[in-house]
Amino acid sequence: MKPDFDLSLYLVLDPDMCGGHAAALRTADLATRNGATVVQLRAPEWKKRAWLALAVDLKALLAPRGVPLIINDHVDIALAADADGVHVGQKDLPAHVVRRLIGPNKLLGLSTSSLADLRGVDADLVDYIGVGPVYPTGTKEDANPVLGVVKLAQLLVEKPLPAVAIGGIGIAQAAEVIGAGADGVAVVSAICAATDPAAASVQLGATIASAREVAA
Amino acid sequence: MKPDFDLSLYLVLDPDMCGGHAAALRTADLATRNGATVVQLRAPEWKKRAWLALAVDLKALLAPRGVPLIINDHVDIALAADADGVHVGQKDLPAHVVRRLIGPNKLLGLSTSSLADLRGVDADLVDYIGVGPVYPTGTKEDANPVLGVVKLAQLLVEKPLPAVAIGGIGIAQAAEVIGAGADGVAVVSAICAATDPAAASVQLGATIASAREVAA
Repeated sequence: MKPDFDLSLYLVLDPDMCGGHAAALRTADLATRNGATVVQLRAPEWKKRAWLALAVDLKALLAPRGVPLIINDHVDIALAADADGVHVGQKDLPAHVVRRLIGPNKLLGLSTSSLADLRGVDADLVDYIGVGPVYPTGTKEDANPVLGVVKLAQLLVEKPLPAVAIGGIGIAQAAEVIGAGADGVAVVSAICAATDPAAASVQLGATIASAREVAA
Repeated sequence: MKPDFDLSLYLVLDPDMCGGHAAALRTADLATRNGATVVQLRAPEWKKRAWLALAVDLKALLAPRGVPLIINDHVDIALAADADGVHVGQKDLPAHVVRRLIGPNKLLGLSTSSLADLRGVDADLVDYIGVGPVYPTGTKEDANPVLGVVKLAQLLVEKPLPAVAIGGIGIAQAAEVIGAGADGVAVVSAICAATDPAAASVQLGATIASAREVAA
């Protein structure tokens, strides 16, 4: 059976930004004890042996908390670590290939950045979408052009699945992103580069919750 | 059942060096029609959708010729393309993990560059080893220190499995590498960057064959 998932506060864990394996594990621990609802591991510069070691440790940390561990791009690492799912972009393995490799019981997320991308989503194969980049970001070298929050809102009207917004989102942006119709907020540096990842997670969670009340 | 393999002239296909997808396919075609016995796809800078597309085309080209297609590092692409095997390095997924993911009927190659690496090879899991870099090479950024042909020969005395030598090997080096005890020669630029990949393959194949006669 597929794990339940809640996109509210989706941590994209960049272990280099955190300071390495141990620091990344500590960041994931603090974030998920303070409101983060999903952890995606994303270490594009890392070799796979290091990826796997961190994925295995994250899985052991997160599984008892019911927080899904998602692996960016690398289906083989997700399989090896028995992670809860995979997140792919438009240039990574296609959704039908990923679904075939991971089977029916794992989560599959897909990045989208345009109406064409959204309309290309096969909602029978994919479980949630990422939409972005909403704001400028330094954490992804090959990012698409920035959408802005108005375009985000226009895209989210068409969302075929639960959607998490991504790209340059911090405390100051979280409320308007939720107001634009996102089901959750994906953050990288807002937690990974925070001096106090626990406090940042609490603040982000509170901001998201009150923005939802306003939107409701 | 595992495919037969012959390490004699092992082409490590770098599609960027060849000039892209179509050019790489053409290089693999020319090389395997002129003596290359294995093709490994290695495109560390490529996104996986492009890897998969080329792997699928290579598989269709090579399977009728009985030439195994090996995928560097990415087990997921090997699975998706139904390639004949995977080649990993010491920092990639460990052999026992790769074997679990690919099952018993695919080839598994492992890069080694020291006596410690050789002694760490599990010959029940791995099918062949790569040994190198023998000579200086510009095609792998994170390469280990150069062995030289004497050290290569010393290492090959301990080889637990068929071994292909790699790293800076061209026509001028192929004979002494075979003389040092290698079962085959892995080349990148000697074919990918050759003005005439067919002629380069023929020449390499002839050099390897006559070096074997000398060694026998």
